[in-house]
Amino acid sequence: MKSTTVSLRTLPSSEARRKRLEEVRGITLSHTGKFTFDEATASSRNCENMIGVAQVPVGVAGPVRLTHPDGNTADYYLPLATTEGALVASVSRGCKAITESGGASVRSSLVGATRGPVFKVRSLAESARLEAYVADQFLRLKEIAEATSRHLKLKSVTSTGVGLYRYIRFVYDTKDAMGLNMVTIATDRVVRHIEEATETACVALSGNFCVDKKPSWQNMVNKRGRPVWAEAVLSKAVLSDVLKTDAVHVFDTWMAKCMIGSAISGSMGFNAQYANVVAALFIATGQDPAHVVEGSMGITTATIVNGDALHIGVYLPDLMIGTVGGGTGLATQREALSLLGIGGGDDGAHAERFAEIIGGAVLAGEVSLLSSLAEQTLSRSHEKLARGKII
Amino acid sequence: MKSTTVSLRTLPSSEARRKRLEEVRGITLSHTGKFTFDEATASSRNCENMIGVAQVPVGVAGPVRLTHPDGNTADYYLPLATTEGALVASVSRGCKAITESGGASVRSSLVGATRGPVFKVRSLAESARLEAYVADQFLRLKEIAEATSRHLKLKSVTSTGVGLYRYIRFVYDTKDAMGLNMVTIATDRVVRHIEEATETACVALSGNFCVDKKPSWQNMVNKRGRPVWAEAVLSKAVLSDVLKTDAVHVFDTWMAKCMIGSAISGSMGFNAQYANVVAALFIATGQDPAHVVEGSMGITTATIVNGDALHIGVYLPDLMIGTVGGGTGLATQREALSLLGIGGGDDGAHAERFAEIIGGAVLAGEVSLLSSLAEQTLSRSHEKLARGKII
Amino acid sequence: MKSTTVSLRTLPSSEARRKRLEEVRGITLSHTGKFTFDEATASSRNCENMIGVAQVPVGVAGPVRLTHPDGNTADYYLPLATTEGALVASVSRGCKAITESGGASVRSSLVGATRGPVFKVRSLAESARLEAYVADQFLRLKEIAEATSRHLKLKSVTSTGVGLYRYIRFVYDTKDAMGLNMVTIATDRVVRHIEEATETACVALSGNFCVDKKPSWQNMVNKRGRPVWAEAVLSKAVLSDVLKTDAVHVFDTWMAKCMIGSAISGSMGFNAQYANVVAALFIATGQDPAHVVEGSMGITTATIVNGDALHIGVYLPDLMIGTVGGGTGLATQREALSLLGIGGGDDGAHAERFAEIIGGAVLAGEVSLLSSLAEQTLSRSHEKLARGKII
Amino acid sequence: MKSTTVSLRTLPSSEARRKRLEEVRGITLSHTGKFTFDEATASSRNCENMIGVAQVPVGVAGPVRLTHPDGNTADYYLPLATTEGALVASVSRGCKAITESGGASVRSSLVGATRGPVFKVRSLAESARLEAYVADQFLRLKEIAEATSRHLKLKSVTSTGVGLYRYIRFVYDTKDAMGLNMVTIATDRVVRHIEEATETACVALSGNFCVDKKPSWQNMVNKRGRPVWAEAVLSKAVLSDVLKTDAVHVFDTWMAKCMIGSAISGSMGFNAQYANVVAALFIATGQDPAHVVEGSMGITTATIVNGDALHIGVYLPDLMIGTVGGGTGLATQREALSLLGIGGGDDGAHAERFAEIIGGAVLAGEVSLLSSLAEQTLSRSHEKLARGKII
Repeated sequence: MKSTTVSLRTLPSSEARRKRLEEVRGITLSHTGKFTFDEATASSRNCENMIGVAQVPVGVAGPVRLTHPDGNTADYYLPLATTEGALVASVSRGCKAITESGGASVRSSLVGATRGPVFKVRSLAESARLEAYVADQFLRLKEIAEATSRHLKLKSVTSTGVGLYRYIRFVYDTKDAMGLNMVTIATDRVVRHIEEATETACVALSGNFCVDKKPSWQNMVNKRGRPVWAEAVLSKAVLSDVLKTDAVHVFDTWMAKCMIGSAISGSMGFNAQYANVVAALFIATGQDPAHVVEGSMGITTATIVNGDALHIGVYLPDLMIGTVGGGTGLATQREALSLLGIGGGDDGAHAERFAEIIGGAVLAGEVSLLSSLAEQTLSRSHEKLARGKII
Repeated sequence: MKSTTVSLRTLPSSEARRKRLEEVRGITLSHTGKFTFDEATASSRNCENMIGVAQVPVGVAGPVRLTHPDGNTADYYLPLATTEGALVASVSRGCKAITESGGASVRSSLVGATRGPVFKVRSLAESARLEAYVADQFLRLKEIAEATSRHLKLKSVTSTGVGLYRYIRFVYDTKDAMGLNMVTIATDRVVRHIEEATETACVALSGNFCVDKKPSWQNMVNKRGRPVWAEAVLSKAVLSDVLKTDAVHVFDTWMAKCMIGSAISGSMGFNAQYANVVAALFIATGQDPAHVVEGSMGITTATIVNGDALHIGVYLPDLMIGTVGGGTGLATQREALSLLGIGGGDDGAHAERFAEIIGGAVLAGEVSLLSSLAEQTLSRSHEKLARGKII
Repeated sequence: MKSTTVSLRTLPSSEARRKRLEEVRGITLSHTGKFTFDEATASSRNCENMIGVAQVPVGVAGPVRLTHPDGNTADYYLPLATTEGALVASVSRGCKAITESGGASVRSSLVGATRGPVFKVRSLAESARLEAYVADQFLRLKEIAEATSRHLKLKSVTSTGVGLYRYIRFVYDTKDAMGLNMVTIATDRVVRHIEEATETACVALSGNFCVDKKPSWQNMVNKRGRPVWAEAVLSKAVLSDVLKTDAVHVFDTWMAKCMIGSAISGSMGFNAQYANVVAALFIATGQDPAHVVEGSMGITTATIVNGDALHIGVYLPDLMIGTVGGGTGLATQREALSLLGIGGGDDGAHAERFAEIIGGAVLAGEVSLLSSLAEQTLSRSHEKLARGKII
Repeated sequence: MKSTTVSLRTLPSSEARRKRLEEVRGITLSHTGKFTFDEATASSRNCENMIGVAQVPVGVAGPVRLTHPDGNTADYYLPLATTEGALVASVSRGCKAITESGGASVRSSLVGATRGPVFKVRSLAESARLEAYVADQFLRLKEIAEATSRHLKLKSVTSTGVGLYRYIRFVYDTKDAMGLNMVTIATDRVVRHIEEATETACVALSGNFCVDKKPSWQNMVNKRGRPVWAEAVLSKAVLSDVLKTDAVHVFDTWMAKCMIGSAISGSMGFNAQYANVVAALFIATGQDPAHVVEGSMGITTATIVNGDALHIGVYLPDLMIGTVGGGTGLATQREALSLLGIGGGDDGAHAERFAEIIGGAVLAGEVSLLSSLAEQTLSRSHEKLARGKII
């Protein structure tokens, strides 16, 4: 059976597609058609069959004061694209608490973008030979991979065999790009070489050993992209004045929710709400929003220090981000990155700074929500802003 | 230390805030300022400290033919908000394959929105008393909860004790709304009642027993929101003509990637790419994008049938969605929902249909990506569209 | 190729088999042949092709004072079958600390033995019909199941569909028996009835939806067998005199190890060492030692109370145990159960008491090991007992 | 409150303890007192407060033909200590099927015994310094560790920081010993050195980053001890004659149970029954039975090959085993190891062979159970042996 419905692909512009859909469906798409970026570029790079845009409100939280590992301290305004009332206000409150406490320390490391193809072998012996080949030929594989782009370095390769399958995880430095596209191309070349050299067939270029856009212990344990840590010490005064609570109550809430609650629920998120903040920053800055899944994993910690202050830390093991490529080149997204001072590439330094800013922003979100919950002011305070949100 | 930076909260409009930020940062935010929805409404309901919008390109995939449980069949154009080139084209290819195979069957069920507060008790005996109280008083608690909103029904309550903590999971029917806000308010009322009646303190209104916006086995095993299933049988001809592959190769790819690859990686996503499609639909239609985390979980199945055809199914145990409330009322998002014919509320029927459409869309994504991987046409085909994407 | 090696099955006795193996392998099995139980019975009920026994040393820890939910308090000597030096001494130390603190409170609940067969359907529609059938016909299925044994009650049935598979979890009360055998027979009868009534085929009587003898979140979240809780409050004096530590240090150790360490490691065991104690009790009393896997899951909690005392609790969600059937009838195992005062059946009361005793014993193990670790006396103290054990 | 109950520790012998318990409890422990190993040795090395033994029946399954990676093929009789009727018969059937198919190929690798202490730091900066110290000083730490025993090599060190905690995983080669005791002593020395050199405090010598005796993704993903693989190809004739089934039915059962059933249940055991076989071999040979938990994890694979034959493979990522030390020196356990030809140490070769034998034994168990389930002969066949067992 052939579908008799209209084909949108052949139409020349977003306007033509909107018109056709408006006719066919009897609807109006007038708001969708209002955008200011260059349609030709976006159509070819970001979105096929384009009909326009979703306008997602962007609010600004902060500023939040962050101290980077090099000792530099800066204040950041955080662009948050969200439709969920109370989020910006909540993160702002956390930023205020952090900044008034002297700021947060942030730190990231580069694990890198990964691709994990899977090969089908005929026996355990062949699987072992493939394992050995990949280990022995690392320098050759690296050469092949790096010939595909000057922006990419192959850092390491690991593999695991299961039955007639061998999974190989390639880890790359892709500088300021999130990099999955270039990593896929590079891995494809390497895989072709391995197939020829070993007469083994690759079943899938991505064997869920990457692991891309799915929650996974592989990434939680071995990390991916740019893991980030942030910490702050909230004084008794800040806890009381800004957050309307105290160290003991926030600690108790954290223990009950982020530790034991997550344990009993089988969660990979031992945190209060990383996903909210990560999603808002990702959409504002043109990241791939499916990577919010990976950014939702991680562990928040709380420790009472000096009697009445609270050390609070966040750890996100798996942030896939970039300041070039993907959606970062679109007009509004580029503006959001410029607000953070990290638009464009800088040999990895921009992406590194971005990871650290995300760490600080996520910390602000945790500080605020855990404090809210601690005081049970939650639904009361939110009925005013946006009925009943826990953010 | 007080932050000396400018406060945005006191400024009267998004324009004033943009100007201030442009001055302070030496940047331009001109594109960000271009939007068409009503600022006053969005400022109060969706986003504090608003400075404008992120313009996220929306493409249309499909149509895809879906048969609902009531026997009705309809063709849907899918609005996908994305910045990742190749996604719309890929989903479209999947839609074509499904539709030319006679369409997909879709089915959903209503579990409901959940809140899982945590109480602190003083002993196992008190924990047992609290457990008994909640079970015995269900009708009373239901009355209290439902007094907070006529759109909400308390369906069930379960609880688990761990040490001095008792976690209680309240499950609600919230009709066409995703409903977390009203659920939070209702649970807050119920919790206050329990606190008074039992002299037990609630430590956190959300104890990560909900589990909201984090990957969790609680939700994977016991489901949340509107779980959805979709299935299609792809004929040999469709597999060959539309997808350039055959049943055996797609099956092998699925097995290596979605089953064994996900198993060895400790993933909750035994699928190829649910998150991509879920994220694009969520952003286009005003869902909470942090819920993409929950929508990334689930299991794709593949079975060779009739010798050379392929039955392919998707199962998403945890979709938190709505057609009213949250971001669904914004101008472009409302248009996207109207394209699907499900804008506004309809006593739960719109949300149910929406879940089923998402199931069909996710199925289309799986069909296309697994086929792509199967043929290793992957990086070659994508270099033309958007260098090297696996979508 | 036929194996030319000797067949043991045809030989008439364990002695004959030992002799044959001694000849064939040139070894001696003289110790293996020393046992005192009735060979005929054990050969038919417990172990085919018997050649004798493994003699596993049994030590006694305790006594530990436990208060049951009915208010009765008793002191228990714990029979621990182990070859790992230091375990009995360590548990004894924990028992002493608990008893000198006034004893532990213990509590269990009956979830029940489960079987989770899987059916293969031809479509989502058929899957939905099967789901409805099972729900609607519960009383009929219960009747069929319970006709297979007067010791068994079918308590509930739940099901989940994934693609062309439907998993059904049958939950049974099997009184004092661990009960998997009778549960399997009963489920087999029910499954045959469902197959005939619905014309749907069961693919496997156990579809890993039970989940038997594998770590699983299904059992961690929804529990299995007889979940158990135990708690004690250790005073400052006991912490100091018996355990050579204090509340703060044990708390810190617990937090670093059982909470954050287990979170970062993706463990289902948020505890120090349940498996050691569970294994030792299981082997001594004739439980199925493969069920140690399920008994290793669970959460230990620690809370500082009254300034300098420590509340410590254990929660084991999945204990599959019995006081009749399986290995409980063997001579030495029966003696171990008699030491606990729970040999034989008592309409479920013995198994319930046994669960509670295991809870108390596991608590003793946690108290001791966490204290040891807290004081870093670990390797020093154990070099004396058994070089370097962490127990 | 002092416990007034009798102390067993001061009594001079197992006989004296039995007598005292018999008096106090009014029971008899006559069978428990029947053992043949040397009491003095066992009392000091294996079990404090000894009162005697648990006699666990040992049956012999096999022989099973295994081909080792060096090309050597041998037939093994498998000593299985079990009280669960049907297990030995089931494994024997699997052994027969494997052997008549030409035997299984087995392969293992040495990851090593691990210890994962946790340090408490005062800031992210200090955590980073500790990370750097451990990486930089590897050779020095190796020297310190290896000075504690000539049987141990420190292979590698990895670490992860979370908040104010840093977890360090030390991986050792312990030759033929399971080795946790020596590993604990060595790690203790290294930890003391690190504490002094860095002025950082170790909170727990085992921070559940090892991960010992708990199910964990850390070990599933990164492996532990001696991972092992085994594979066999079962011909149509063997499937039919020995196993009463065929390739398609076993494949279907495996898919429904080990893959999708385990996925939907959140299990780390994508297998049918590793724990049964691992437990029986562990108890017979004097392994630490709490390590059955780790041995229960792993993935079974099934692939139809050559049209009607079945390739079946097992993968156990985490086997903690030894042929010297622990319970391996006890009389009956030593005899069981001698039956396998691997008693005592051989520079790691015995432990390696043992791992491979376990792989073959586990494969036999999977072959038999999956075949049983496939034919639904399950409960019928087992009613004859031991009512209703699924083994």
